[in-house]
Order: sequence, then structure tokens, then C-alpha cells
Amino acid sequence: MDVKALAAANPEHWSRATAIRALALDAVAEANSGHSGMPIGMADAATVLFEKHLKFDASAPDWPDRDRFILSAGHGSMLLYALLHLTGYEDMTLEQIKNFRQWGAITAGHPEYGHASGIETTTGPLGQGIANSVGFAMAEEIQRATYGNKVVDHYTYVIAGDGCLMEGVSQEAITLAGRHQLSRLIVLWDNNNITIDGPVTLSDRTDQVGRFQSAGWEVIEVDGHNPDEIDAALTAAKKSDQPTMIACKTHIALGHAAQDTSKGHGALTNAEQNVEAKALWGWTAGPFEVPADIKSHWEATGARGADARRAWEERFDKMSRTKRETFNRAYALDAPKRLSATIKAFKKQMSESAPKLATRASSEKVLEVVNPVMPETVGGSADLTGSNNTKTGDLGVFDTDNRAGRYVYWGIREHGMASAMNGMALHGGVRPYGGTFMCFTDYARPAMRLAALMKIPTVFVMTHDSIGLGEDGPTHQPVEHLAISRATPNTYVFRPADTIETAEAWELALTSKKTPSVLSLTRQGLKTVRTEHRNKNLTAQGAYVLADAEGRRRAILIATGSEVEIAMAARDILQAEGIGTRVVSMPCWELFEEQDEAYRKRVLPGGPVRVALEAGMRFGWDRWLFGERGRREKSGFIGMHDFGASAPAGTLYEEFGITAEAAAQKVRALLDGKWQPDPRT
Amino acid sequence: MDVKALAAANPEHWSRATAIRALALDAVAEANSGHSGMPIGMADAATVLFEKHLKFDASAPDWPDRDRFILSAGHGSMLLYALLHLTGYEDMTLEQIKNFRQWGAITAGHPEYGHASGIETTTGPLGQGIANSVGFAMAEEIQRATYGNKVVDHYTYVIAGDGCLMEGVSQEAITLAGRHQLSRLIVLWDNNNITIDGPVTLSDRTDQVGRFQSAGWEVIEVDGHNPDEIDAALTAAKKSDQPTMIACKTHIALGHAAQDTSKGHGALTNAEQNVEAKALWGWTAGPFEVPADIKSHWEATGARGADARRAWEERFDKMSRTKRETFNRAYALDAPKRLSATIKAFKKQMSESAPKLATRASSEKVLEVVNPVMPETVGGSADLTGSNNTKTGDLGVFDTDNRAGRYVYWGIREHGMASAMNGMALHGGVRPYGGTFMCFTDYARPAMRLAALMKIPTVFVMTHDSIGLGEDGPTHQPVEHLAISRATPNTYVFRPADTIETAEAWELALTSKKTPSVLSLTRQGLKTVRTEHRNKNLTAQGAYVLADAEGRRRAILIATGSEVEIAMAARDILQAEGIGTRVVSMPCWELFEEQDEAYRKRVLPGGPVRVALEAGMRFGWDRWLFGERGRREKSGFIGMHDFGASAPAGTLYEEFGITAEAAAQKVRALLDGKWQPDPRT
Repeated sequence: MDVKALAAANPEHWSRATAIRALALDAVAEANSGHSGMPIGMADAATVLFEKHLKFDASAPDWPDRDRFILSAGHGSMLLYALLHLTGYEDMTLEQIKNFRQWGAITAGHPEYGHASGIETTTGPLGQGIANSVGFAMAEEIQRATYGNKVVDHYTYVIAGDGCLMEGVSQEAITLAGRHQLSRLIVLWDNNNITIDGPVTLSDRTDQVGRFQSAGWEVIEVDGHNPDEIDAALTAAKKSDQPTMIACKTHIALGHAAQDTSKGHGALTNAEQNVEAKALWGWTAGPFEVPADIKSHWEATGARGADARRAWEERFDKMSRTKRETFNRAYALDAPKRLSATIKAFKKQMSESAPKLATRASSEKVLEVVNPVMPETVGGSADLTGSNNTKTGDLGVFDTDNRAGRYVYWGIREHGMASAMNGMALHGGVRPYGGTFMCFTDYARPAMRLAALMKIPTVFVMTHDSIGLGEDGPTHQPVEHLAISRATPNTYVFRPADTIETAEAWELALTSKKTPSVLSLTRQGLKTVRTEHRNKNLTAQGAYVLADAEGRRRAILIATGSEVEIAMAARDILQAEGIGTRVVSMPCWELFEEQDEAYRKRVLPGGPVRVALEAGMRFGWDRWLFGERGRREKSGFIGMHDFGASAPAGTLYEEFGITAEAAAQKVRALLDGKWQPDPRT
Repeated sequence: MDVKALAAANPEHWSRATAIRALALDAVAEANSGHSGMPIGMADAATVLFEKHLKFDASAPDWPDRDRFILSAGHGSMLLYALLHLTGYEDMTLEQIKNFRQWGAITAGHPEYGHASGIETTTGPLGQGIANSVGFAMAEEIQRATYGNKVVDHYTYVIAGDGCLMEGVSQEAITLAGRHQLSRLIVLWDNNNITIDGPVTLSDRTDQVGRFQSAGWEVIEVDGHNPDEIDAALTAAKKSDQPTMIACKTHIALGHAAQDTSKGHGALTNAEQNVEAKALWGWTAGPFEVPADIKSHWEATGARGADARRAWEERFDKMSRTKRETFNRAYALDAPKRLSATIKAFKKQMSESAPKLATRASSEKVLEVVNPVMPETVGGSADLTGSNNTKTGDLGVFDTDNRAGRYVYWGIREHGMASAMNGMALHGGVRPYGGTFMCFTDYARPAMRLAALMKIPTVFVMTHDSIGLGEDGPTHQPVEHLAISRATPNTYVFRPADTIETAEAWELALTSKKTPSVLSLTRQGLKTVRTEHRNKNLTAQGAYVLADAEGRRRAILIATGSEVEIAMAARDILQAEGIGTRVVSMPCWELFEEQDEAYRKRVLPGGPVRVALEAGMRFGWDRWLFGERGRREKSGFIGMHDFGASAPAGTLYEEFGITAEAAAQKVRALLDGKWQPDPRT
């Protein structure tokens, strides 16, 4: 690679791009940690994108109609931080760049959503950005169809590396984008043929061009260091009626001693080599210095979109007040005023009719009343629509000829769905929810964790939430998955016991602004246990006394979801024997933990023996059995101790001993002082 | 589709294939649950495969040189059960078929490895079978290169559906197979254009032919109901020097009223329609009846491989005794005799030299002595070889020109790696281990769960196991992942504290026959805490007293991994103040749970205050803090309460309060009766 010739061919472009290179090199060297080579290699493409194509205004990072830029190859975070700094994002100061990867800085090792303006999503776990981008582009289409292209008219740009493209989730993403012909989605592939272990060919020889084409994409191949080729490709991509992948042939760590090597992927910290690289680049400024003319050109780029933004604001103001309010409300994640009354009315009706329903069917009933009053919801399922009960009558199906459709057939792509839902939530203006079997939490996990980390309220509708799924057997029966989601910070896990609690859970999920929700719903029918109407959302307290003891309180049964009715039946048995028994329904551990000590103590007083019922692993339950005024020798667990089995649900509950009689017997034994450790305590 | 013409064109083939169809239809109808349409649609292809190509002997299901048949579309389990029954596998009786999906039957909803002979892997979670198959085919290549093609010379056949191909993991699998030109791998795609939600085109329009070709596969397109075309394709595929995908255009639920509809995907239980379908098929036998001539032809197919198997046994017996012993020992999952002595010698050396090492580096040191004495190990990493420290000098790299190579560069494919490792373990003869960052447990989860469910000893080397990873930040810092693996049944989670415990953990992982292992290893350097050599494997007890209190025992510190040395430092502080403090190292919860009550009581006696240290979420720790003779008001936790942050590791430990002084202070407060709830208890 003749770097000097490159620089000479387009000196102005070169100096602007090299400002990125130099900042990345300096910041990584200062931190002695990070990834220098990718920002250096993709500086040319990013420069052309920001300078000539990306619609943005650095002074208004939240402008809803901005183009979105997603750095899927998140390890190259300094590329993004340098761009944000150079174009004048207020919070991305030089000080922050100098504190790259240090405690308290907004310049984390990988871009963290919420840390700094202009970071559209958290990336680093590979493939997530490109999968998010599908949701971004879908949300744009839905909003454009809803509000018109005077108000919604933007693109989603992605920079993805070989790592992103090797991750399976990228295939789910690109086939979705191809299926829906998301023509506003443009991916720049950093084709540098280097991974951490060595040349890409060590582990992969995929023809990426053919792969994208077979997924329905347009592909354009360019020299990733030639600004004119990049510019022409971006221009063509914007005009295409397909999603476009621009394959940018690049050199990682261009011009550095580590160029084109896996060493160039990591932190380039050799001071002498770094000096040499800068010399070859023709970069004479000191560390962290950007010559004024270059900085000022970059700042002009950052301000380039200001006029367009102001013009947009004028157009926005011309929309009807109702539309403006709905638009802004949805972006602010404020629930519509009518939601609360709708839920209350629904609860009243259900507590009166007291249906026996699987909570997945309860969930559909809730959505039937919620979706009409909450036009920002976008539902979907990973090919289990009829099983997850996620589709309601009025949504319409999102498709190439129905961009306003609010239901997505995600196909058998749990991971892609979860990640794209995150993208929708990040885009703003829509509230995504999507379903699969709870066991396939496993497939969606990487994206579910990122929703929690990013503090976005994606809703995961996880049905068939226990051995109650029955005959499909242990591959499809979650036993550890409640624990998995509960162990994850900033995640609400709702396991409602009946239609009323399901409605309450949905209300909490749809009014959450910072926390994703997992709805754990049954396949099997459940009695309504909340037959006395209360306007108050009891699920908001996490746990509450569903039925108190008659006479002296000698036992407390704590249960969630489908096991609450079993606890109620156990209470009937025990009360008939004169054993005063309280039943506590605990639909959300996390919210109960948030209550004050006094409330928790009222619900779970010390003294009585305590038995928990949940058709999952005991893991984590000791918190409530021993930890909250409980005692080991006075407590027990009725649930699973291993994987499930294939048989009808009723048989499984009997065989695994999750029955009212088993719970009653456990209470009797504890009251008799006959404590026994569980098979797996 | 003119079914009568189909039947007439190849009457003998038709009647044999229709025996499968009828059994599937009857079993699903009897269970009132399951999937009828796929076995009906793929019966022709499966019949040709079993009748003319698959090398197997139903009387010797464990014959190591059999071809492997993997039903990746596991919901069509009746296809497999019917084939096993018809060809005469002893355990697959008609009674079992009649008890499809019932308690205690070996005919679970989805094929469960270990339930019946001829089930090569557990499938159902889509995409797993095809991803397993890469490991099967690699294991075959490695074994063939090691033992020669007189002893190892077989194929891996897969039936995969649209669901398998939509899952991202299938992309990881097919690009790996393409990269390594696994020409012994042949996938039959059930191209029926139907998923649960409707036609495939609802969610996908991928050109699968182009997709496989761009991954380096040969593709052959056939009419999936034409036995001659299928036969010719299989013959060609076996000769190809690429992996081959045979696209079988089929009709789901062929000949049934539900043919070509998503209804046909599920349980066909309408008695009248089922009678009509059988009539159209020309099938006159009663429910669960197979006419004697057809059954006898199928049994001949099941016995077809007997001669080849006997000839193989003769060839096998001609191998040198050493080779035979090693071959059989590896298949039996017996460790080499030298392993134990090797580990003991290593431990002795390390306890004397007491290196300060990251446990990932300790792990490499262990592998350096283990791999030479255990030729069946196959290592690898998902593009983090230098970080996971999984490659040792003598392994050689598996590649197209080095099939005996024992190290796989998996690329950025954690899920595909984990699933392919399962395939290797299932194939037998090799013991796979592979590494990634612990946070990417999330990506590998679906396969890790299946290893536990299948009871196979895959080893997952998870390095960078806490905030100790440092600057990469919260996207890369596991906090809930220890809990995730611990909550999973039948999984050993080892978190060793130093090089000695790492060696002990490896010994346990490599001698396990039924349980997969997760090795949780640090990025950061750790002191050797086990400086006194013991031949005994203390990690096998799960937890043990590393340092007892001097004087009256007033406190117990329980710690794992990198926090053990912090606990030891806290003990120094406390002992200096006259507070007798015991340190318990707890490298494996599951093994400690397996110890008898007396041992557990010796390690964790009641009385002293108790503080646990682990740089992860508290979730699950109450088991040891409260549950095992502990008490809430006398216990505390030093660890994480939320996601991590991006900064140098030392800073993070300080900022998150995971320090010796914080632990000492917690003990002092507890002894003073000043218990405080943790931020997230």
C-alpha cells in the first residue's frame, strides 16, 4: 500500500481522515488498551460517510429524523469517539478522548448507549449492531408510513467487521433485511481480512458478496481507501430499492508497522512505531492535537445538517397537534393517558368473569385492549404467533407493501428478533414486544442482556414457561430460565398467576422507561385467582398477600405464575386441617426487592413455616426462603431439581411432585420439625 | 401433487416410505400431540438414505464406524423413531412408538440422546443438529487421519428444515463446514416452504442454493419425492470433495388434507382426514400395523451393514494393540492412566514454584502437560486463542491439509463452536474443549444447555471471567454468568483460585463422563494460594478449608477464583486484629453440594459470621450464606450488584468495593451486630 500516494491523491480528505487515525492511535496508546487498527483502516469510509452523506446535526443529537450511524464493530470505538469529538458533539470533549477507557469517562472500551450523545446503541458483542440496525430500519419504515416522509425520512448506516459477519445473528439480520427490502439500510463492511487469531481465511472463506446477494441485498465493492469510490457507492446505495452492502477493501492499521496483521487489530502502543506511522501519514501535529483548519472543517460537517434540521422542525410543526403529541409521547416513552383506565376496566371485567385461561391467552386478551390505545406498540413472534398469542386483530402485518403494519413475522430467528427489537426501541417512536418459547431465552440471551445494560424497555414475551409445556419435552421446557433472567441486572421478570396479574404485568412493562421486561407465561390453562377487583396494580409491589391465613398463621406459601393456584389448593387442604395458611403471590422478585423493609416484612413475617412453589429450579429462591426472616429448618421448596421430561403436563406435575398435596405435606412435615433437604437444595 | 401417480411410479419404494408415514400419523394422532407433516414429507428421502446409502447395523448401534444420521429438524422425531423401529433397533419397540410423548417412553417429543439407540444427538432447538454435524464430521476427519481409513471411513447425514436454516447458528455451521471442506458431511434440506406461521416467504426469501454455494458447498436440487433423483444426489454427494447440500423439494403432509399448509406442520389428529390420507397413500393396514413383507424388507435394510461391520471388526483387530486400546479408551471416555500422575507432578511443581499467573495462563500450563498424554483432546477458541490460552505447542492446527490437527480456529462463532464441540463429543473418540470470553456464554448458551441435557462432557473454557477483564467494559464483563451456569442442571462450574486448583479442575473436567464443565478463568494475575502440596484433588470436594482461623474462629470468608487471594488478604488483616478467620475456597458449588452433610458442616460450621466474596452477582449465594447453618444477620456479600464499567481492573475492584479491607470491615460490622442489607440482597 503506497500510503504517501494515497495521501497525495486526495490531500484534504486524507488530512481529515487522518485526524481520526491520529486520535485513535493516541487514545489507545495513552490507555495502553483498545483497538487502534480498525479506526485507522475505516477512517476513509467514515470520513466520506459523515462528510457527504450522514444527515445529522451535532448540536441536536436527539433530532428524531437524523440518520442513524451504528458501529457494529464496537471494539473500534475510537472511530466513533473521534468522529463525535471532531464534529463537535458537546459532551465528547478532548478530555474524554484522553480518558479513553478510564473510570468515569464516557469513552468506554466499547460504545455504551447512554454514555454520550451520538452513541445510538451499545456494541462490542459482535453482530449486535448489524442486528439492531434491522430494527432501526423497520422502525423508520413504520414511522414513515405513519407520519409521512416529510417528518420521517432517514437512513441507517452500519459499519460491520468480519467478526460481525461471522456471528450467526448477522445471518438472521441480513435475511430479515432482505426479506423486507429495507432499502434505507446501508452496511459498510470493513473487509480487512484480519481477525484476532490471524487472517480471516484461518477460519472463514465465505464469499460475502454472494451471501448478501442470496439474502436479497445489493452489493457494491469498493477500495475502502478511495474516497470517490466510497462516495459513489453511498450515493448508489441510497437510491437502491434493496438494502445495500458496501464491501470496503481496507488495510487494518494502514501505514503502521502492524498494517495487515492481527497485531494491528489490537492496541498499538509501541511509541516508535506510532511516530513512524504518523510520519508516513504526513501527520505532524502533537499527541491529541488536531490542527485548527482540520478541526474547523470537521465542525462544519457537524453543523452541516442544522438547516435541514430546522426545516424539519418547521415541517413537524405543521403536523396536526394530535400527531405531534403522539409522536413526541412515543419518543418520550410516555404511556398514553388512556392506558391506565383501559387496564383497570379490563381487570374489573376479568375479575368478574374469572376466566380459566393460559396466561399466554390472557396476554392476548390484554393486548387486544392495549394495542388500540397504544399505537406505538409493534408486536411479533419468532414463528410461534399462534402459540405466543402475540398478534391482535388491529395490528396489520409489516411487509413490503404494508409498511405501517405493526406485527412482524420474525421467522425462526429468536436472536435476530430480540436484537432487532432492541434496535426499534433505540430508534424511538415505537415500543416493541416479541414472543418465543421461554426455553429459547437461550437463543435471545445476548440481546436480552444488552437491553438490560442499555436500559431500554424491550418486552420479551416468553410463553410455555415450564414443564407445563408438556409433551415437547426437556429441550423445550425451561427450568433454569427464570433464574437466568432474574440473575441479570436491570430486568423485570414477571410471572403472572392469572389474567389480572398478566394485565398488571403488561401495564408495568409498557410504562417502563429504563428496564426491559420478561413476561413468563403458561401454555396451560389457569384459574383466575384474583376474583376481587382492585384498581391498584398489586404486581407493582412484586409480591402481595393473595389469601391470608384463617386463624393462627402457621404457614406461608409463596408461589409464582401457574403454581399460585396450586398454592391456593394447598391452602384449602391445610386450612381444612386447621393449619392457618397464607398464600403470597410473587409475580416479580425485582419489584418486591424494591419495596421497603416494612412492606416486605408485612408480606413475609418471620415465624410461620415457609414453602415456595415454582416449576423451575430452586436456584435463587433461598433469598426468600432463608433470607427474609425465614429459616432453613422451617422452609421447603416445591419445584424442579433437574431437567423435565416429555409427557402430558398433568402427568409431569404429578411425577415431579409439584402438587397441592405435596405442598401441604411439606408444610405438615416442617410443622412437625421434620425438615429434609431437597434433592438439590 | 398426484400422489397416486407417485405411488404407482415406484410401488415398492412407496410402500416402504409409507410405512414411515403411517407410523408417524398414527403415533401423533394417538398422542394427540407432535408433528406429522415433516415425517410424511421427508419419508421418501429418508427411505432412500437408509435403504441405499447409510452405513449402519441396527444390531450394533454403537459401531464406531457407522455413518451418523442427525435429524436436525427434531420436531419430526417420529421420522427417526419410525426408521429405528422399522429397521429393527431392539429398544425401539412398537410399544414405544405407541407411547410416543408419554411418561417413561423413550420416544420423547424431540429425540433425546441417551433415550434410545440410534439417536445420535438431542435435537429440537432448531439449528443445533446441523451445527452438531460439523463437529461430527470434524471428529471423523481427525480420527481418520489418526487411525487410517480402514478403521475410520464414514459419513454424517443431516436432515434439516427451514427452521434450522433460518437460525443464525446454521450460518456459523455451514461456513465452518465450507471452510474446512468437510466433504463427508451431507445435508438434506426439507424444502417444503412451510413454517408454523405460514409459508416460509412470510419471513424469509433467502436463495438457499446461493447461500450454501457462497459458503463453499456443493448444492444439488432434487424432487424430494423422487427416489431416483434422491439416490443419484446422494451418490454424487458422497463423491464430492465439498460438503453437499441436497435441496429436496417436498410437500409437507403429502397426500393429507393439510398438505402444503402450516396446519400440516403440527399434529394431524382429525380421524376422518387421516383415514382419507391413508386411502390416498394406498395404505390399507390398521393403525400401527406394518405388513410383514414391508417390515421384513426394512429389517433387511437394518441388517444390510452387518457384513461391513464384521469386516470392519477384523480390520480393527489388525491394528496395533496400543492403537486399539487408545481408540477404545477414548470412546469409553476413560482417561489415560498417566493423567493422574501427570496432574499430581504438575501440582507439586507449581506449589513449590508458586507462580503468579492469570488462571487462563495456568490453564495453558495445565494443557501443556495434559495434551501430550491425552491424545483425544481437541482444543480451540472462537478467535481468542491468545486470550483464552487454549493452544498448546504439540496440537497442530486442524485444516484441509492437516486433518490430524487437534486445534480448531473456530472464528467468531461461539455458538457454532459450542454446538460443534457437542457434536465431537457425541461422535466419540475425541474430547473437545474450546474457549471464549465468559460473557459470551450468552452466545453459546443453547449448546451449553444441550451438553448438560445430553450428559456429555464438553469443556467450555471461559476466560476473562469478571470485571477483572478491565477496560473492555460491561459488554465484556460477566456478572450474572456464573449464576447462569450454576442454575443449569448437570453442569460443573469451576472457578479456580490459582494454578493448583486450575489443574484440579481440568482433571475433573477431563475425567467427567456425564457432565459438561465450565472453567471460569481470570484475565488478571493471581497469587498461588495452595503453596502446600497435596496429592489429593481438593477441588473434587467442591469447597475446602484453605486457611483456618488462628485462635477462636469468629469469621468464615468463602471465596471463589480471583477473590480467594482477596479473602486471604482480609484474613491477614483480621487475624492481625485478633479476629480468628477461616478462609474457605469454593471452586465448584455443585461438587460441594454432592458432599455429605458431615463434610459440609466441617467446612461451614454454624456460629462464626460469614462473608462471601465473588466478583459477580449475589444471585444464588444465599444458599451458602443463609442456607448452610448461616444466618442473614450474621452474613454479608462482597461482589457485584449491577453491571460493571470500563476502567483498569484494579480501579474497578476498588470502585466496586471488592477489596480485602471491605471484607474485613464487613466482618467487623457483623461481629458488632451492625448488619446492613446489601444494595441488592
